[in-house]
Amino acid sequence: MARISESKARNGASRRAFLKAGLAGGAMVAAGAAVTRPNPAQAAGDPLITETQDWNRYLGDGVDASPYGSPSQFESHVVRRNVSWLTADPVSSINFTPLHELDGIITPNGVCFERHHAGTAVIDPVEHRLMINGLVETPLVFTMDDLKRFPRENRVYFLECAANSGMEWRGAQLNGCQFTHGMVHCVAYTGVPLKLLLEEAGLKPEGKWLLAEGADASAMTRSIPIEKALDDCMVAFKMNGEALRPEQGYPVRLVVPGWEGNMWVKWLRRLEVGDQPWAQREETSKYTDLHADGTARRHTFVMDVKSVITNPSPQAPVTHGRGQMVLSGIAWSGHGRIKRVDVSLDGGRNWHEARIDGPSLPKALHRFYYDFDWDGSELFLQSRAVDETGQVQPTKDELRAVRGVNSIYHNNGIQTWYVKADGGVENVEVS
Amino acid sequence: MARISESKARNGASRRAFLKAGLAGGAMVAAGAAVTRPNPAQAAGDPLITETQDWNRYLGDGVDASPYGSPSQFESHVVRRNVSWLTADPVSSINFTPLHELDGIITPNGVCFERHHAGTAVIDPVEHRLMINGLVETPLVFTMDDLKRFPRENRVYFLECAANSGMEWRGAQLNGCQFTHGMVHCVAYTGVPLKLLLEEAGLKPEGKWLLAEGADASAMTRSIPIEKALDDCMVAFKMNGEALRPEQGYPVRLVVPGWEGNMWVKWLRRLEVGDQPWAQREETSKYTDLHADGTARRHTFVMDVKSVITNPSPQAPVTHGRGQMVLSGIAWSGHGRIKRVDVSLDGGRNWHEARIDGPSLPKALHRFYYDFDWDGSELFLQSRAVDETGQVQPTKDELRAVRGVNSIYHNNGIQTWYVKADGGVENVEVS
Repeated sequence: MARISESKARNGASRRAFLKAGLAGGAMVAAGAAVTRPNPAQAAGDPLITETQDWNRYLGDGVDASPYGSPSQFESHVVRRNVSWLTADPVSSINFTPLHELDGIITPNGVCFERHHAGTAVIDPVEHRLMINGLVETPLVFTMDDLKRFPRENRVYFLECAANSGMEWRGAQLNGCQFTHGMVHCVAYTGVPLKLLLEEAGLKPEGKWLLAEGADASAMTRSIPIEKALDDCMVAFKMNGEALRPEQGYPVRLVVPGWEGNMWVKWLRRLEVGDQPWAQREETSKYTDLHADGTARRHTFVMDVKSVITNPSPQAPVTHGRGQMVLSGIAWSGHGRIKRVDVSLDGGRNWHEARIDGPSLPKALHRFYYDFDWDGSELFLQSRAVDETGQVQPTKDELRAVRGVNSIYHNNGIQTWYVKADGGVENVEVS
Repeated sequence: MARISESKARNGASRRAFLKAGLAGGAMVAAGAAVTRPNPAQAAGDPLITETQDWNRYLGDGVDASPYGSPSQFESHVVRRNVSWLTADPVSSINFTPLHELDGIITPNGVCFERHHAGTAVIDPVEHRLMINGLVETPLVFTMDDLKRFPRENRVYFLECAANSGMEWRGAQLNGCQFTHGMVHCVAYTGVPLKLLLEEAGLKPEGKWLLAEGADASAMTRSIPIEKALDDCMVAFKMNGEALRPEQGYPVRLVVPGWEGNMWVKWLRRLEVGDQPWAQREETSKYTDLHADGTARRHTFVMDVKSVITNPSPQAPVTHGRGQMVLSGIAWSGHGRIKRVDVSLDGGRNWHEARIDGPSLPKALHRFYYDFDWDGSELFLQSRAVDETGQVQPTKDELRAVRGVNSIYHNNGIQTWYVKADGGVENVEVS
């Protein structure tokens, strides 16, 4: 920021003084602590200043312009991004949450990452049905109106694709946290506890597993242990207050807190109760990792403790030079709350406790900050999260030592960003 | 919901059985507890069923269709609504949050109500400046980049226009909670504590008031006591994770938790420290109420404890007939958390404690539910909130007895909805 002279600010021409001082200030802020007076020459009357900053000379649009609002024209770069090389087919595709442009713990509905196996199903809620069948006393079919007559709950949960950070198993590959970690979002859900619907149908004693099935063309199906279904799963119809978005399963999806995103079946149409897991395509050919010896890790449902620094990061370099810097990031765990996040500026040699700010809710994103003065030297930034069960985020090398490098899913290793002296940031590995 | 026969659900044609049972179920659900088997005749093969419900026969759009997403085509009725009769000029106008279509405590950015006194200012964040001047040691000018170098916080707060429910002072007038109570929204803000910026400038001991000024054509200006500024005010640049929306003050607004919305100056460009309040236009000609004797209530900043039932309500009648019903609503207080909400079905004669579900955060919306079986008789629905300081939401008559009927602002009286036997709902008053 820039100092301004008291006389300029307080005299009759305060508006003009403000604008001139402002521009000078913007130009002269470089080294953080360097607070300067405006350059009188710069403040001498560039017509551009009044032309671009005199917003209060013009009436704006009234409220009719946006019955459903949109972001500012100056934020058009804040979007989900697809990468064509990751999926073969345009309808079996993925895009990524722009984590480096966000803050807090809520992901706005417009930028929640998507993953489809057969594109977005477009479903008329009046026609949609949810069936519960299998090992139940009374098979049932629910309309959406039926579902909305059961007691509801509201919960904030992260959803992370099991493949998030998957490309990084074999080294630093993607230049930006949107691409390395952007298969995660965190939303406030409203829905009915799954337990209530299962109780309505009446579980038979031999019912131990649940098959959740989607109404899209991939007929997404996943097996879920009945204990989880009766614990904290939800049948959700709202996200962040409004109806689910089409790409998030409108009109109804399963919420499986803390567990891999693929299990949160979208466009939910059927829940079958059985006595054993099903081994459907999406839990065998995919969403199963191979150890180094070729044996498979099965039923790797929980998303373990993880974190990433979102700012600075490759897509959000340091542009302000040395001095006061806000380092920010997100942390989460499928086991519960985050208890602590530590940050390293030197690739893991020294650690500093970060400040977690905002609601701390179980199985939700946590926002952390580390405020420090940058001396302009190179940094190797890392964050390491610890959850309330005591689990500590591992390094990538620690993960590889246990699981080999055949995995795609469940990479919760520590991410390193290399901040160069010019403020540019790269994805690197340190060991 | 409807029972289905086990054999149908489990045989090879389970998909078809599901669809038929579903349609029959939807048609036969009427009296809540009446769970029925599908009519075999109805399930005999209507071609319409497969045509409208076979979403899984068609691939959907891939992720490229929506780099920034939008609601479902089936939710196009969920929008803010302007009413032309309330404001004379299209740029000095207001619209309303569709409360009856929402749930939980977060208002999505696309439907947060708007109030402008000169339309929405369109501001380039690179050019924007925030000045702090007046009774400070060092007047300062901040760029947006400067602001983002200060430590941040994340807080969820409601914002309520002082005029919310203003038309109801003189009786039940507007048919829908969107219009009676929709000048409120609740959002997660990210920003810098105002205290840090004032400390950077250095408050002089005689600085007791703050003037906040907007960069729009109305140059919105409000006086704020310095104690509030140093307590919990924020200079916010993000809402619900992403940049402020243009109509909410992009790129930066003041957040004045629990106090009337007009003080949350949008497009914030200047903060002047003074030794007394300013008595600007927006705090004299407006945002001041007259008692019955003509004397003015000044500095009525805090929004008192309040609640409203959002469902059922005139825009959301009961369509499912008697039986299991979810009554839902929101409660809030500028004094802190909501401790309790009671609901009456008979116009205030008997009260039942509602269930508050979801995060309970100070000066934020709280979501409440009351689940009951409706016998189909007429109801006079009311909700009454109590906050953690012990303040109890008054009846409208209690308010009128104290303040007369010259007021427009600060009507936090209890709202009554009349539910008719056919499920239709009207705005009424009972005494």
